[in-house]
Amino acid sequence: METLVVVGGVAAGLSAASAAKRLKKKELHAVVFERSGYISYGACSEPYFVAGLVPEPDDLVEITPEEFARKREIPTHRMHEVLDADYESGQVTVLDLADGRRFNEHFDYLMLATGSVGRRLDVPGEELAGVHALRTVEDAIAVRDSARAADDVAICGGGYIGLEMAEAFVAMGKRVVILKKTDQMLLNFDPEVSRLVEDEVRAKGVDVRTGVDVLALEGRGRVEKVVTSEGDVKAESVLVAKGGVPNTTLARHLGVDLGATGAIAVDRRQKTNLDRVYAGGDCAEAYHIVSGRPAYIPLGTTANKTGRVAGQNIGGLRTEFPGIVGTAVSKIFDLQVARTGLSLKEATDIGLEARSSTIQQGSRSSHYPGGSPITVHLVTEAGTRRLLGAQMVGREGVAHRIDVLATALHAAMTAEDIYHLDLAYAPPYAPVWDPILIAANKARKA
Amino acid sequence: METLVVVGGVAAGLSAASAAKRLKKKELHAVVFERSGYISYGACSEPYFVAGLVPEPDDLVEITPEEFARKREIPTHRMHEVLDADYESGQVTVLDLADGRRFNEHFDYLMLATGSVGRRLDVPGEELAGVHALRTVEDAIAVRDSARAADDVAICGGGYIGLEMAEAFVAMGKRVVILKKTDQMLLNFDPEVSRLVEDEVRAKGVDVRTGVDVLALEGRGRVEKVVTSEGDVKAESVLVAKGGVPNTTLARHLGVDLGATGAIAVDRRQKTNLDRVYAGGDCAEAYHIVSGRPAYIPLGTTANKTGRVAGQNIGGLRTEFPGIVGTAVSKIFDLQVARTGLSLKEATDIGLEARSSTIQQGSRSSHYPGGSPITVHLVTEAGTRRLLGAQMVGREGVAHRIDVLATALHAAMTAEDIYHLDLAYAPPYAPVWDPILIAANKARKA
Repeated sequence: METLVVVGGVAAGLSAASAAKRLKKKELHAVVFERSGYISYGACSEPYFVAGLVPEPDDLVEITPEEFARKREIPTHRMHEVLDADYESGQVTVLDLADGRRFNEHFDYLMLATGSVGRRLDVPGEELAGVHALRTVEDAIAVRDSARAADDVAICGGGYIGLEMAEAFVAMGKRVVILKKTDQMLLNFDPEVSRLVEDEVRAKGVDVRTGVDVLALEGRGRVEKVVTSEGDVKAESVLVAKGGVPNTTLARHLGVDLGATGAIAVDRRQKTNLDRVYAGGDCAEAYHIVSGRPAYIPLGTTANKTGRVAGQNIGGLRTEFPGIVGTAVSKIFDLQVARTGLSLKEATDIGLEARSSTIQQGSRSSHYPGGSPITVHLVTEAGTRRLLGAQMVGREGVAHRIDVLATALHAAMTAEDIYHLDLAYAPPYAPVWDPILIAANKARKA
Repeated sequence: METLVVVGGVAAGLSAASAAKRLKKKELHAVVFERSGYISYGACSEPYFVAGLVPEPDDLVEITPEEFARKREIPTHRMHEVLDADYESGQVTVLDLADGRRFNEHFDYLMLATGSVGRRLDVPGEELAGVHALRTVEDAIAVRDSARAADDVAICGGGYIGLEMAEAFVAMGKRVVILKKTDQMLLNFDPEVSRLVEDEVRAKGVDVRTGVDVLALEGRGRVEKVVTSEGDVKAESVLVAKGGVPNTTLARHLGVDLGATGAIAVDRRQKTNLDRVYAGGDCAEAYHIVSGRPAYIPLGTTANKTGRVAGQNIGGLRTEFPGIVGTAVSKIFDLQVARTGLSLKEATDIGLEARSSTIQQGSRSSHYPGGSPITVHLVTEAGTRRLLGAQMVGREGVAHRIDVLATALHAAMTAEDIYHLDLAYAPPYAPVWDPILIAANKARKA
């Protein structure tokens, strides 16, 4: 019997273990090591746990270790950190964080699902109590407890997590300030779209400060204030939400190659440069179908998919992951905020000659009550008018409309193709000319 | 100056007039004749007018004759029926229904946007007061007034309009019975999906009777009961909603060819067999991209699009309408009910070897409160697994998800292609494996 060692017990790791075991059954022993105290947790739901919508930490968990062992016949070890790995001898060194015991485990196959780590502020005082990142379930509990005890909460960072957490803290009745180094929130959106989100966040009472350098965190034992280039900001709880970087420590020890993005380079079968060593999820690159090059866009969807493909290949099935187009959606207060493909800046940065155009259109027929405006921003290639990316903001009807444009990216459609799509119409759900068609009509002439 | 005569002042007719006039400006005189008392009305919103959500008849109107004259420089004549047309002499004969005056109008171009007429029951008593079709704004007013005065309302027909109107009548506090000749409601859906809709309609208190032949309508002056093969049904108001047939009377007088569907045959530029005679909207066929043949699927979206293409070609621009995939959505009580492409029956009827598979999946992440099941039914071609059609039912998240599958049909994607789509995920809007991906995963193996 061969052994598959999986490092990381969340989306990619468990998907890989499940897929491989399902295919090889009695021929494969799969074992999962997870550094935190929880496996199979939905990190994307953590803001809703902090806000109280998801009542208990266990409600964040998809499948428990007991169920996973019983249904999939795969043991999982929580609070177990894989410290090192040796490719030649096929051994990983594991530390049981609960009792300090170290042991070796042999592997025939290794799945790296080590995820990402939060980018740090790298300022004095970052180790103070009350200063948090939000990655694990333990983090989520700590953030909730810390915010409960605080009057003022500061968020360093203006990405999805920062903004989703702003909503959670406001729901808890806290005074919330967002400190953002750049002039723009949601940097993977173009300014005409991110500005609408910023307006919404401000309108909900959040003190948004852009162009602010965080210089230090200060307090006696616990954080009491954030020292910034624009003065001190009172905060008894601080969330550092500056995005993640791939956790590649173990990969580098093993001799696994990283790509230009700094994440683990993999082929379409999720294999690294080393035979029998696979990677997926937030520690790995994924091929970007629009740009035609590897990208680092860590998302839960991609983690599940790339984990499954890795597991299928470990299990002997030759499957391929065709790649991503970078689709994401976030609920930010009452807005649905979504994107797919490349922003104008991202397209231009990789040398594409691109254009963008923006429209606003009602979410429902003008005859039907209760509609609200949807903003659609399309990025197209000059000349061909091929769609390169799309961004959308609105109070309803955005979260799935973006998937139409994601599908159009997979099919390499032009603005003209999109203008001719036969989309559904009913007064409660859309105007007869859907916002997507209005946007495509403008983009095909832009 | 040339003259464009447009017969029909709703979606296709006004779109054609506007597009042609915008291109030819001073070189073209466009004039519109509309038989009813309203132009530019949203027939799809009429159920919401009857229910009281749309307060006034004028709220159903997109643009008034006065605005249309001022902004587009196009006169429109309401209550004007075009009785006849002579191609050789380029004359239409018009009857002013208000004063009985008849006159001729010369045309260089003719746009047929004569719409559809409601299919009749063809039973004794159909002319009684209290028996209605729902096509025009006047119909909508009459249906509302008739239902207001009734305790019991009967609907003959179980398509979109019949079911949307059932919701409206229930909202008005009426006892509602649906009489349906066949065993299945929503005949353009497969039974496993239409059954879910039927369950919802029954659960809302509607008395749904399938397999019932309507034999007569009876009453003294006004309708009092429906005589059926299964006994009498008390009703002081009856809505006949058995779908529409193309209104081709004028076309046949002119010598315009009809297609196999019985609707007006047009080319990709919306031209009929006669030069300078165009057609669009509910009186015309449209090319069906999935079946590869002309289809008759009268919908507001297609009417607007085909009207615009006709007008552009009349205006001298050579544009083409690439066709439809038959996408539609309807709000039926608390359900969103949507379809695109071919049903299994439709696919089989045209000789395709097809398979269907059905899944149910949550509309939101299981971690996030408030989700509900979405049913996704996919029809694929045997062997190639190319998507042929999709149907979807759920309380949320259906109306725009169907458009993803419509887009997949335009791109001729297989179930495998759809399984690999990079769709948006956030706990409030979708599970990490979107229902579409779960459905495609099943269909690629079906």
